[in-house]
Amino acid sequence: MEAFTFYNPTRIHFGVGMITQLGAEMQLAGIKSCLMVAGNGSIKENSVYTQVMNTLSKHGIKVHEAWGVRANPTLSKVREIVAIAKETKAEAILAVGGGSVIDTAKTVAAGVFLADPWDAFCTDVPIVKALPIYTVLTLSATGSEMNGNAVISNTETKQKWAFYSPLVYPKVSIIDPTVQCSLPFKQTANGAMDAIAHILEYYFTNQIAFSTLGIDDALQKTIVEMTDRLKLNPSDLIARGNLAWCATLALNGISGLGLSGGDWACHQIEHSFSAMHPDIAHGEGLGVIMPAWIEYMSEKDPSRFVRWSKNVWGEDSVSRGIMRFREKLEAWGMATSMRDLGIKERDLPELLELIMITDKVGDVSKLSAADVEALLMLAY
Amino acid sequence: MEAFTFYNPTRIHFGVGMITQLGAEMQLAGIKSCLMVAGNGSIKENSVYTQVMNTLSKHGIKVHEAWGVRANPTLSKVREIVAIAKETKAEAILAVGGGSVIDTAKTVAAGVFLADPWDAFCTDVPIVKALPIYTVLTLSATGSEMNGNAVISNTETKQKWAFYSPLVYPKVSIIDPTVQCSLPFKQTANGAMDAIAHILEYYFTNQIAFSTLGIDDALQKTIVEMTDRLKLNPSDLIARGNLAWCATLALNGISGLGLSGGDWACHQIEHSFSAMHPDIAHGEGLGVIMPAWIEYMSEKDPSRFVRWSKNVWGEDSVSRGIMRFREKLEAWGMATSMRDLGIKERDLPELLELIMITDKVGDVSKLSAADVEALLMLAY
Repeated sequence: MEAFTFYNPTRIHFGVGMITQLGAEMQLAGIKSCLMVAGNGSIKENSVYTQVMNTLSKHGIKVHEAWGVRANPTLSKVREIVAIAKETKAEAILAVGGGSVIDTAKTVAAGVFLADPWDAFCTDVPIVKALPIYTVLTLSATGSEMNGNAVISNTETKQKWAFYSPLVYPKVSIIDPTVQCSLPFKQTANGAMDAIAHILEYYFTNQIAFSTLGIDDALQKTIVEMTDRLKLNPSDLIARGNLAWCATLALNGISGLGLSGGDWACHQIEHSFSAMHPDIAHGEGLGVIMPAWIEYMSEKDPSRFVRWSKNVWGEDSVSRGIMRFREKLEAWGMATSMRDLGIKERDLPELLELIMITDKVGDVSKLSAADVEALLMLAY
Repeated sequence: MEAFTFYNPTRIHFGVGMITQLGAEMQLAGIKSCLMVAGNGSIKENSVYTQVMNTLSKHGIKVHEAWGVRANPTLSKVREIVAIAKETKAEAILAVGGGSVIDTAKTVAAGVFLADPWDAFCTDVPIVKALPIYTVLTLSATGSEMNGNAVISNTETKQKWAFYSPLVYPKVSIIDPTVQCSLPFKQTANGAMDAIAHILEYYFTNQIAFSTLGIDDALQKTIVEMTDRLKLNPSDLIARGNLAWCATLALNGISGLGLSGGDWACHQIEHSFSAMHPDIAHGEGLGVIMPAWIEYMSEKDPSRFVRWSKNVWGEDSVSRGIMRFREKLEAWGMATSMRDLGIKERDLPELLELIMITDKVGDVSKLSAADVEALLMLAY
């Protein structure tokens, strides 16, 4: 098992009614005023907003509001909210939403102390300070509620990049699975695929971290089973809860311990999809590129994929494992090709250029431009 | 899935050579002087002591030493070390050893601020302060390196009790699996059984926490496989590493989320075994009582044990699952009955009295004195 360091100080309150814990947690930390970051208002339709306001008010915490964060959150929105955070002298950032909202909140929390928030993503200037972050999760997918990562799109440069800092782990995250019962199945499935992708980015790097791989087998199987249940009944609270917790574990560190930091080629490629086409949902893009990557890689070295085919899909043959994975995504109504995602053939050269902008694509095998081109053709 | 709160701020440095991280971590926290707590000197035989002294000295950290902690660590030893900690004005407690040493260190760290350290175990006075704790693990078993629990025996009252405080999570724990390569197999197997027992205490409480149960299936299977490998080759570093990490995960919170806080009848019973007979290894005692508990409980409600028999032991019948579990422990050379542990039949009434001293034995089913008596007979 390879060496690793694990540290994750986020406190999780999980379960029905847990939003009520928020105000007390912030009060305990001495916070008197916060800036709430949110999306397009769906939290006003499902009582989450009311619950949040009630607990903050009960504990005497003043709140300002910044709305309008969208999927594939943008740098321009981050800049706008940084200005509000400074103006309102926010002592903490409270994200109420899914991964896009939380990632925006993290970038704002660090960005308040930077010349420009994009510095967090592309310079060697270390992040030395960030406002404390609290989250109320409304869509399980990215795992951002329990890690130190954020992904933001710079629409000017068409770059969708990530940063990590130990300073942006949320202090407290509230995961109440009931608030996800009103989600359309499409979003649930995209979230599930995102969580599976996080596990898979680590899974194939190393075959001797049995302790982590066993956990990763179990997480993948549970995600698939729970998503199947939610397709039949979106209000199945047992399935909602288990899916939510698996998605958090998929990227809180646990799923990657001893696995070399992961591969991340598929994420890098998908980030370029959605940097070019902001309407592509991250999970759906991953559902297109990830099976293609496995297929492409397994042609070179099938042995790497035997455990996965067997333990996750119950198949002795790798090609049948891949088939089962694709069939599942199709059954969930997800796109199965880049064409389905609305990407045009004429976009491919620009896409390739965007993907190859960094020195390194992937770790299991470092993909050359020719590899990535072949992979895109396979996924097209 | 039931509601839960999860919080675990311990930083883990895992892997070969990681002891070198210790000095830098303590220096970073501003610590200038610490009290090292250790066992009977085996760390001087396997270079751990030298590595620890080198990293502390390199970072200018003064160290005093308190030796002689034994298995089933005692309150009298804790009191002795509290006096040394006060006298040497220790700014931190450094545990170098297994669970007994770490539990002693935790109790000392809190005990320095209490009228008497036993107050931590039996009064309603909350623990409001503790010295920071650092650990270098030398035997994977109790999970104490990454939780807020400690178990200490009061030999005067024959009570072996536990306390929990968020203040005694180690700040940093170092897990270098190479230092365990010199362990006798007996100790490895006892440690493995202890880890399995931690998982099982949670496992049977609730059958809908699929996310956690899947992880728990995987942890149990990996522990069994790695222990089998270590029986053949104690220096198998891959097996050492994976077993070590499973043992940490078995009681760092992850394995019990959504599982009602666990049952803990078997731990309570075993603690009474070793309170009466301090030479009984905790893991070995658990290996006697736990299969008996499963057998006793499954007679009332076999359905609760179906998943475990199937997923961990590959058996459709519960009785065959129990048989496989017992066969495995026997193959590892462990005791299979209370008689094997050296407990005399005439001790049983006193043992029963000791076990029933608290109001509650178990949670899956609250065991009466008659239940416990029947269970002891089954295990005898």
